[in-house]
Amino acid sequence: MVASSNPKRGKLYLVGSGPGNPDLLTVAAHRLLSEAKVVVYDRLVSEAIMSIIPQQAEKIYVGKAAGKHHLPQDQINELIVKLALEGKDVIRLKGGDPYIYGRGGEEALILVENAIEVEVVPGITTAQAVSTSLGIPLTHRGLATSVRYITGVCSGTLESDMDWAGLADPDTTLVVYMGLTHCEEIADRLLREGMPTELPAALVENATRPDQKFVTTTLAQLAHTARQQQFVPPTIILIGWVVGLAAELGSEQQLLQEDLRVNG
Amino acid sequence: MVASSNPKRGKLYLVGSGPGNPDLLTVAAHRLLSEAKVVVYDRLVSEAIMSIIPQQAEKIYVGKAAGKHHLPQDQINELIVKLALEGKDVIRLKGGDPYIYGRGGEEALILVENAIEVEVVPGITTAQAVSTSLGIPLTHRGLATSVRYITGVCSGTLESDMDWAGLADPDTTLVVYMGLTHCEEIADRLLREGMPTELPAALVENATRPDQKFVTTTLAQLAHTARQQQFVPPTIILIGWVVGLAAELGSEQQLLQEDLRVNG
Repeated sequence: MVASSNPKRGKLYLVGSGPGNPDLLTVAAHRLLSEAKVVVYDRLVSEAIMSIIPQQAEKIYVGKAAGKHHLPQDQINELIVKLALEGKDVIRLKGGDPYIYGRGGEEALILVENAIEVEVVPGITTAQAVSTSLGIPLTHRGLATSVRYITGVCSGTLESDMDWAGLADPDTTLVVYMGLTHCEEIADRLLREGMPTELPAALVENATRPDQKFVTTTLAQLAHTARQQQFVPPTIILIGWVVGLAAELGSEQQLLQEDLRVNG
Repeated sequence: MVASSNPKRGKLYLVGSGPGNPDLLTVAAHRLLSEAKVVVYDRLVSEAIMSIIPQQAEKIYVGKAAGKHHLPQDQINELIVKLALEGKDVIRLKGGDPYIYGRGGEEALILVENAIEVEVVPGITTAQAVSTSLGIPLTHRGLATSVRYITGVCSGTLESDMDWAGLADPDTTLVVYMGLTHCEEIADRLLREGMPTELPAALVENATRPDQKFVTTTLAQLAHTARQQQFVPPTIILIGWVVGLAAELGSEQQLLQEDLRVNG
């Protein structure tokens, strides 16, 4: 990465805000936000986290909803480059972790090409927050030796993009980000590759938010459950034997989740 | 989870300490540590993080090194149950995230069986810290649609435990925790399943610590590089096209990493 030779250039902090609960920010992210002057933020950043930013700071919303892009990615790129070139230190605030489905790498590359200094701060990704709050360990001796994050949103069709045989490993916890739209196809393909029909699966809408909605089902019943319970995006899906542990490890955690509720 | 009906029972906080840098603790973990009375901690928790704990707190070391178990898992389980039954609120502090290769699920189950209340706080897992500090996005449009964490330590032999064909997906970033001992076998099997010889790979020893050691190589050269550069555990291995981005996104980040150095 080329450091800025122009002292008037600002620095860009690419910061993960985690799942929404300010308690799950990193110490570094909390400090940066509490001293922020300019923040460019996404739809998935919670109001509780936004309230940490000083009143007088400039807050620029570039939020994207699935299928409803508020500001296209290339315009976001242009904006953050422009702000840094104006000499402003900018926090680019994203839900979760900037380098896991955050398109953070794309933004970092554009900044580096423009000789703007970038620092990236990781965040608790939604899979981890769901795991710890609902009692679903992502790995667990005898149940899951591996964990894999995939996305239900892809450039082509799911059919061509996915290595279905490789995904169908019952020893791996599978976490599907933004997976609701294609959950029927995903479940069907995994079942056809031999994944057990009774493999536990969980749907979590608005994970860790006050309006979180959570249900466990089976791989065979996944799409039916999603329809019947009227799940809407953003919903994350967990598939694997570990989901079965929620019955033992989960209920108290869900009560705890209530205690941590954000008035956002 | 069954709540304690005995008011004298303590509560158990299963807390992820992240990769070692106190700036990457969650706000919740930092607060819990700064008010702690009893902490049961592992080898992978840094001195910088231990220094957040009040002087007068009871600190119990149960650290495990690979192949050199200080206290067997069942004795750790017995210890934390005993402390909670004595009425103490206990922080069980683990490196990374308790529910990703932390055996947190096993400890939580034992506690629940003993009617002890448990709260789990996630942590930045090493893969994320390495990703953001070295400039290796775990997912990236056109390079990685998925990310997968596996472990090089397993109950049986690698040969029988691993779904090699499923693992050999060049569109998935593969992160191998504790993978150094078996890295030659892992690379060989992935190459035999058709993974490209020139696929970039990274070795990171003591990730995010002052003595971090980092090198990029290729899948074909992985074992040779590890031997030649004398890598030792704990070493995490990243395999995938995204590793190639470190050349552009990494150097400044590594300088930044220097700034964040822990005097541990």
